[in-house]
Amino acid sequence: MNPKLQWLRNTMSSLDLQGLIISNPINIKYLTNIEAEGVLLLTRKENIYITDGRYIEHVHSILTLYDEIIVYDMNDVSKDDYENFFMFCENVGFEENYVTYAQYKEFIRKYKINNLVETEHIIEKQRMIKDRDEISNLTKACEITDNCFEYILTYIKPGMTEKQIADEIEEYYKQRTEGLSFETIVASGENTSKPHATPTNREIQENDIITIDMGCKVNGYCSDMTRTFFVGSVPEYIKPVYDLVLKNQIQTTEEMKDGVSTRLLTKMVENDFKLNGYDLIHSLGHGVGMEIHEAPYVSYRSDTQLKENMVVTNEPGIYVPGKFGVRIEDTVQITKFGCISLTKSEKNYIII
Amino acid sequence: MNPKLQWLRNTMSSLDLQGLIISNPINIKYLTNIEAEGVLLLTRKENIYITDGRYIEHVHSILTLYDEIIVYDMNDVSKDDYENFFMFCENVGFEENYVTYAQYKEFIRKYKINNLVETEHIIEKQRMIKDRDEISNLTKACEITDNCFEYILTYIKPGMTEKQIADEIEEYYKQRTEGLSFETIVASGENTSKPHATPTNREIQENDIITIDMGCKVNGYCSDMTRTFFVGSVPEYIKPVYDLVLKNQIQTTEEMKDGVSTRLLTKMVENDFKLNGYDLIHSLGHGVGMEIHEAPYVSYRSDTQLKENMVVTNEPGIYVPGKFGVRIEDTVQITKFGCISLTKSEKNYIII
Repeated sequence: MNPKLQWLRNTMSSLDLQGLIISNPINIKYLTNIEAEGVLLLTRKENIYITDGRYIEHVHSILTLYDEIIVYDMNDVSKDDYENFFMFCENVGFEENYVTYAQYKEFIRKYKINNLVETEHIIEKQRMIKDRDEISNLTKACEITDNCFEYILTYIKPGMTEKQIADEIEEYYKQRTEGLSFETIVASGENTSKPHATPTNREIQENDIITIDMGCKVNGYCSDMTRTFFVGSVPEYIKPVYDLVLKNQIQTTEEMKDGVSTRLLTKMVENDFKLNGYDLIHSLGHGVGMEIHEAPYVSYRSDTQLKENMVVTNEPGIYVPGKFGVRIEDTVQITKFGCISLTKSEKNYIII
Repeated sequence: MNPKLQWLRNTMSSLDLQGLIISNPINIKYLTNIEAEGVLLLTRKENIYITDGRYIEHVHSILTLYDEIIVYDMNDVSKDDYENFFMFCENVGFEENYVTYAQYKEFIRKYKINNLVETEHIIEKQRMIKDRDEISNLTKACEITDNCFEYILTYIKPGMTEKQIADEIEEYYKQRTEGLSFETIVASGENTSKPHATPTNREIQENDIITIDMGCKVNGYCSDMTRTFFVGSVPEYIKPVYDLVLKNQIQTTEEMKDGVSTRLLTKMVENDFKLNGYDLIHSLGHGVGMEIHEAPYVSYRSDTQLKENMVVTNEPGIYVPGKFGVRIEDTVQITKFGCISLTKSEKNYIII
């Protein structure tokens, strides 16, 4: 059996689950490589994937005998089949954070399940720890992001609009990867004060400040990097803020390692910002993998311990409303004794 | 109070609901024009929208006193406030098809609700019937789609790839509308045999068959149109299939009107296809509005009666595996005595 399904079966037995219904397509892709509409059932003895006619061919092309997954066309599954899948299962798990209340009731009716049990993100928790292939895809996506950023620094000229720059980044990624991992942020001038700015028709000016938050997808894995940089020169009034953000980004990089609390990291940055009269208004980071935002969340609300081979962002930012903002973000891989920045672009003042 | 909220309050009292929690952002936008992350509560006496700091400014810019909606920043809402919102409400409705099982349990805990009641798509059902403004936006989106199709027929030349054509359509829409209402399908040659083909690098050839399924968004409302057409000439072996699809598309247009059963319409087309040795492998149509696919669904699985001012697609198609496919689709508005095609592009053989 494929090792991820084997792992999941072991976890199921430790949780006293005799069956499991997996509905979240990203979790299904993680476990099986299948990208389709359907549901994955782990019954007492079998792994079953139910899909419809549109996807049967694709699914068969993905799976090997080694996966030990039986594929059904939903049109061939009878009422009795559904009732038999989980027969003699005392507890059947489901994804309560993905399944709607209406689907939950439908599961009970259709599969005749006595005890449908919440599974509290078991698969998402496993997805936090990346294996060698996953790290390799993430590394590649980050490398292309560094290259794209290097290119875009030579591309940007005063007079261009934020949108134009965002389009060029998209084009660069499209030619080399599966495309954007999220909608690129290109913010200039006072627009940099909004953490989630969308590119506008504002034209880049001499002596502008520019923030770009960008990422792409390689084999389904995302990258995420932000740099704030300058046209011509760094205005004196921005320097203290830039320096403070950079200092905290470097300090976080130094502290991120196996065993460290995400809450503590966040508090550390928050306190240093406050000492200097600023706030940390968004979380310090988030996991990156098949999704651009996934567990673990690096914020004071989540108290996770970082573990070896988690991949997370480190992205402190300060925003002065209506004036400007600075954010510096890397995607980093946690190791036993520290962390490795997978994005490696320059972090000291960048002037174009 | 805004008339859509007034309508919803009337519906609530007829269903014996004293409170309602609306979570689906599209339903919230429909009712209030708000586009943000948040939740809309209809309590005994008040309409309340709870969002976070990022959206407060936007929300205030959208709402007028006339809306009678009180806006809260979620950070200012206390545990007690949550418990007070639905105090003395016997039944509180929620959107069981949108809310996850985990959120459902959280609602009960947070709002201290005794009887949380499923509401069976009440808002989606109302959204099926379009008002004058909605029809006007849908008409505009369809008109631009006709223009885009006319333009693209002059643009396509042998040697171009499917992707290149899809990109040109996206560019055309981007300059005139809010952009695509769904990812454009451009399929050529044997790729037309897949109903949901994604554009590839296949180059258009002399004597090719091409299917384009396209649509844009105007003021948040979608258009949807498909045409199958030909380079140079119509191959003789395709003509009977094209004629059969067109005959059924026209017949469906003639039969679509207030009071007609969607199941019956589908059976009519299905039977004529079968008579000729083909199958109808996807539904005959779907509602179009703020979402590209919404209620009502025109298929043999859904038995809805069409009503005046519903807007649906009419899209029979035949697919010969590995060879070719033909689909002809219009977006149409249902009237008392018939229907009006909002997309008006040529349906007889189109040769470029």
